[in-house]
Amino acid sequence: MSSELQISPAIHDPQGQEKQQQAAGVGILLQIMMLVLSFVLGHVLRRHKFYYLPEASASLLIGLIVGGLANISNTETSIRTWFNFHDEFFFLFLLPPIIFQSGFSLQPKPFFSNFGAIVTFSVLGTFVASMVTGVLVYLGGVMFLMYRLPFVECLMFGSLISATDPVTVLSIFQELGSDVNLYALVFGESVLNDAMAISLYRTMSLVRSHSSGQNFFMVIVRFLETFVGSMSAGVGVGFTSALHLFKYAGLDVDNLQNLECCLFVLFPYFSYMLAEGLSLSGIVSILFTGIVMKHYTYSNLSANSQRFVSAFFHLISSLAETFVFIYMGFDIAMEKHSWSHLGFILFSILFIVIARAANVFGCGYLVNLARPAHRKIPMTHQKALWYSGLRGAMAFALALQSVHDLPEGHGQTIFTATTAIVVLTVLLIGGSTGTMLEALEVVGDSHDTSLGDGFEVVNSRFMNSYDDEDTPPGSGFRTKLRELHKSAASFTELDRNYLTPFFTSNNGDYDDEGNIEQHHEERIPFTRRGSVNNRG
Amino acid sequence: MSSELQISPAIHDPQGQEKQQQAAGVGILLQIMMLVLSFVLGHVLRRHKFYYLPEASASLLIGLIVGGLANISNTETSIRTWFNFHDEFFFLFLLPPIIFQSGFSLQPKPFFSNFGAIVTFSVLGTFVASMVTGVLVYLGGVMFLMYRLPFVECLMFGSLISATDPVTVLSIFQELGSDVNLYALVFGESVLNDAMAISLYRTMSLVRSHSSGQNFFMVIVRFLETFVGSMSAGVGVGFTSALHLFKYAGLDVDNLQNLECCLFVLFPYFSYMLAEGLSLSGIVSILFTGIVMKHYTYSNLSANSQRFVSAFFHLISSLAETFVFIYMGFDIAMEKHSWSHLGFILFSILFIVIARAANVFGCGYLVNLARPAHRKIPMTHQKALWYSGLRGAMAFALALQSVHDLPEGHGQTIFTATTAIVVLTVLLIGGSTGTMLEALEVVGDSHDTSLGDGFEVVNSRFMNSYDDEDTPPGSGFRTKLRELHKSAASFTELDRNYLTPFFTSNNGDYDDEGNIEQHHEERIPFTRRGSVNNRG
Repeated sequence: MSSELQISPAIHDPQGQEKQQQAAGVGILLQIMMLVLSFVLGHVLRRHKFYYLPEASASLLIGLIVGGLANISNTETSIRTWFNFHDEFFFLFLLPPIIFQSGFSLQPKPFFSNFGAIVTFSVLGTFVASMVTGVLVYLGGVMFLMYRLPFVECLMFGSLISATDPVTVLSIFQELGSDVNLYALVFGESVLNDAMAISLYRTMSLVRSHSSGQNFFMVIVRFLETFVGSMSAGVGVGFTSALHLFKYAGLDVDNLQNLECCLFVLFPYFSYMLAEGLSLSGIVSILFTGIVMKHYTYSNLSANSQRFVSAFFHLISSLAETFVFIYMGFDIAMEKHSWSHLGFILFSILFIVIARAANVFGCGYLVNLARPAHRKIPMTHQKALWYSGLRGAMAFALALQSVHDLPEGHGQTIFTATTAIVVLTVLLIGGSTGTMLEALEVVGDSHDTSLGDGFEVVNSRFMNSYDDEDTPPGSGFRTKLRELHKSAASFTELDRNYLTPFFTSNNGDYDDEGNIEQHHEERIPFTRRGSVNNRG
Repeated sequence: MSSELQISPAIHDPQGQEKQQQAAGVGILLQIMMLVLSFVLGHVLRRHKFYYLPEASASLLIGLIVGGLANISNTETSIRTWFNFHDEFFFLFLLPPIIFQSGFSLQPKPFFSNFGAIVTFSVLGTFVASMVTGVLVYLGGVMFLMYRLPFVECLMFGSLISATDPVTVLSIFQELGSDVNLYALVFGESVLNDAMAISLYRTMSLVRSHSSGQNFFMVIVRFLETFVGSMSAGVGVGFTSALHLFKYAGLDVDNLQNLECCLFVLFPYFSYMLAEGLSLSGIVSILFTGIVMKHYTYSNLSANSQRFVSAFFHLISSLAETFVFIYMGFDIAMEKHSWSHLGFILFSILFIVIARAANVFGCGYLVNLARPAHRKIPMTHQKALWYSGLRGAMAFALALQSVHDLPEGHGQTIFTATTAIVVLTVLLIGGSTGTMLEALEVVGDSHDTSLGDGFEVVNSRFMNSYDDEDTPPGSGFRTKLRELHKSAASFTELDRNYLTPFFTSNNGDYDDEGNIEQHHEERIPFTRRGSVNNRG
């Protein structure tokens, strides 16, 4: 903390004039007050179980209102200066904690037991959604329905707008209870699809700037370079951190907690910067570092440090996320909007709804082909997944970057459309989520396999289905899908038999973390079982 | 944090060129690696009880070595770019957590029982030290012994170099055990003298820039404006935070810890920015917010949140402090130094040693006049206090600012001299502290009134000395001093009877925190005693 606040404009001016510094101070003051207000308002709304205005929407509204007031008053220009920060601030200070936390708060067990489905939805599905959106936007431009963008730029827009952020859906799941597999699907999909969307965006951006002599093969290579390269960097740093902190496990020394925590906090940023230094995606890298660090490094920490780092990352990411929503609201209220973008916005919304349907129902069909009868994803779950396609910080950040990457009018159009889509989806979908999920009957205490308790059942069932291969073989395609599915299960085996014993000081058996509650709760995460060295 | 890292140069360039961003990434990467190395090295040294190289010295050395290597190699200019950040970064991101933590880790009981002595040393003493240093440096200039600076600039240098940072002394006290009163004196003096030094520096800076028509009275007014104004802002925000978080005390709601912690983390920065917005000193303000929040707001938190915020601020400030020491080492290795400053540096060191002696032994004499016989500060304690006058982050930050405030050559001279003094005092005093303190016999387990256990004894003795007024009345001056001393004690009464019951949800009785160990230890801070509302 503390330090996750806006870089004042004064920093950009080496003269450091007192007036300007003072104005910056007032600007930051205003931002802190808005943050405090958001937290308190969100808290009050949640206590009164008012689900029509989730925290994210409340933050967005506060930003909208303050921005609107500033717009009316004459102080506009100076306030605009206070809030004017560059997209690097987003990418260096706000996004990393948010993305790391989304990887870090992933519960390994339900995630890995739905690994195949999640990868299908997030990799194949996001690709499908990006292409469908891009092609539709391009066709819309060709047919003069909306502002016309070049095809590659349409694909860039399709990629960035496919990054979902189901923050309100997930908070309602946590509030009301939900099926653990549905939660894992929605959460896992949103986490990995950020990585996919950013990789697609970067690939398209590279294709655009080096448009000569590019062929389809090169595009694939570039995409793999970004995605696999960043993932490897992230996973590598994660494993390094696990081995590094392994050395301290079981040592009962003075001041250990602070040492452990300092190192634990530095590794994610190291991963981010390493990837950026290698011209890869820091965001994708830090996401995978988060997943690996939660799964391996985390269990090498002392019980106190475990509680601390969970709360720490939760705090930092809440602050960053709230700030992002406030900023988005403020920004849309302050922007000079021309009505010419209205058509683009409306058609884009229609297209992303269609693209999301193509993603979810298409991939849902494929996944169900591969799954045995009792594990098929029910239609209600697919609808909930389709419904949870809110757009958030990642789409906004990429749109902010597109303003620099693209020619004047194009980038501005994409940015305005994205901001509008974010605000509309957060306010409309966010407000109706409670009602909608209850109508679909996927939330509520009555639910049998409620989060936490239900997981063991699901998991054992899942394990059984691979122990006894009595399910009748389907068509050739279907068999292949099942084999793919099985390879995901074999990853779980690899993890259990080799990775976990090597990288952690646990006795190799899984912890019983089958519940989705956040780790800042009073409950103590699985304690270290002695300091037996299982490496050999 | 994660987020307490250097602002990349890329931020200053709205174009965001990929090359530059990449170089920035490598720079930050290098910094993170140096941070990790510092923490690990410091940890190893402490485990092997090697007191000749405390953590701060180790960080400084790492910076020096990396800077030296960079100086030899040809990459100098690009590395210099990576590390080139403005002093606003120091003042906005690095100093606030360090200073807040020093206020926040102040143990109220020994601090308030030595309140009179601490205020004497830090307010009167720092004033004396600044003036003595300033006058001696001026006289040295007049006598051609050293670079000649105008008188006001000498006083500015005297003020900034009087900010002490006894980080290594305090860590050795903690390691080896020490008298609780001595610890409170050294720690309390260093905390408040930062506030005094910064206020004096700002006053002198204002005097310099508006030199016409200034009289002595205006200087006093300006000083009081800065010091008292900033202090009031800080105390005000601190009390506001106590009342604000009071509302949540005893509520057993979901997600409470995150809410509490977010608010708790935002208030200090709010205080900082409020003071800056009012043209006051944010550093002084955040320091007093830290003291007040620890004393009042902290006890309104749930037990979990208490543990979390202690660890959080400890973590953030360790990271910032280590980074500052690394940066200082790096900077002195990279700077182009001319030998012409050597005389200035050597004489300055001599003068600050003299000024520190005038401060400590002069104020020690005054304090002892006021104290009853059994509570006099022994000479060994005074020597230890004199010895613990290391210079650190605050002096460095003010010197960094003076480069902007003063004409070219003058600011550079002060900056170079300050950096050299910081490095020399940290390495020399830091390395010899263990030996020196053992020679003075103020550390060691054999000590009777060791930290923690001994405090109750001291305190009850102190209380007695005011219950029965059987000490013979001395001279008029002496009586006045005693009355002043009594008024400090009456603050303790005010706090116990009115402030604590009003601002906290405690039952008004003091907690038993008489020990100096950091709060990240396993021990649970005093738990909330029910949620009885004692306001009425």
